[in-house]
Amino acid sequence: MKSLCGLLLVSSLTVCLTSSGQTTFNDEQSIAKILREVLTRQQDAWNRGDLEAFMEGYWKSDSLQFIGSSIRHGWKATLEGYKKGYPSRETMGTLTFDIWQVRPLDAGTWLVSGKYSLARKSDNPQGPFTLLFQKKNGRWVIIYDHTS
Amino acid sequence: MKSLCGLLLVSSLTVCLTSSGQTTFNDEQSIAKILREVLTRQQDAWNRGDLEAFMEGYWKSDSLQFIGSSIRHGWKATLEGYKKGYPSRETMGTLTFDIWQVRPLDAGTWLVSGKYSLARKSDNPQGPFTLLFQKKNGRWVIIYDHTS
Repeated sequence: MKSLCGLLLVSSLTVCLTSSGQTTFNDEQSIAKILREVLTRQQDAWNRGDLEAFMEGYWKSDSLQFIGSSIRHGWKATLEGYKKGYPSRETMGTLTFDIWQVRPLDAGTWLVSGKYSLARKSDNPQGPFTLLFQKKNGRWVIIYDHTS
Repeated sequence: MKSLCGLLLVSSLTVCLTSSGQTTFNDEQSIAKILREVLTRQQDAWNRGDLEAFMEGYWKSDSLQFIGSSIRHGWKATLEGYKKGYPSRETMGTLTFDIWQVRPLDAGTWLVSGKYSLARKSDNPQGPFTLLFQKKNGRWVIIYDHTS
């Protein structure tokens, strides 16, 4: 059974990959563009003080994971955490993302690394981030965020 | 062409998944076990002061990525960084990994999150980590490490 599966899959994949190699490259280019746009929209939303719009970049699910000093689960808890941590425009400051890389790990999961920095009157917190994107309900969203 | 591909792939996958569902679950169980063992071996290697053995858990490639305060590339550079940062048994202290999750992102990429802590005479540094594992040359290895 296993060898039949292998044969079927290899044959199908050969047919499909051979015919769609170029498309795949173009697909990757356009996915990378989409992910960068998600981050640009997040940056813009943050900088006009709109945390709800900022959170649109994240998977609206209890399974969203956010790693800071501990592991935090869920879209709502993450939004609440942001609201508590950044109660005013002044505490939010001006956010800039410096993107180091945008690349696929597998067909369905993309990795984005970079550095955030927050320009505020009192200080300038900054640190690296690792984001994992997957397509959920037709949209590429952050399913996992580790920010140092 | 696209619809033929779809049909071929769906048929093959249906045949294969139907016949191997149980195997896939067992496969996942055994991959999770393997990844935990990699971390246990790393912990043990660190705690006997063997940085080279510790580094066996990582992909021996210039493409290995390590996110600390910046992005560091490559197995050798990472090892050199560790040697510089931890020049003695005393600076290495006793390492403990507290694993929060081990889960597949896709068939080929697994995510491991957790917290490291280092018990030393002078201090006790600790922080969360995100590891991405892929199978390279037949072995599951860390291809990406973000440690805060």
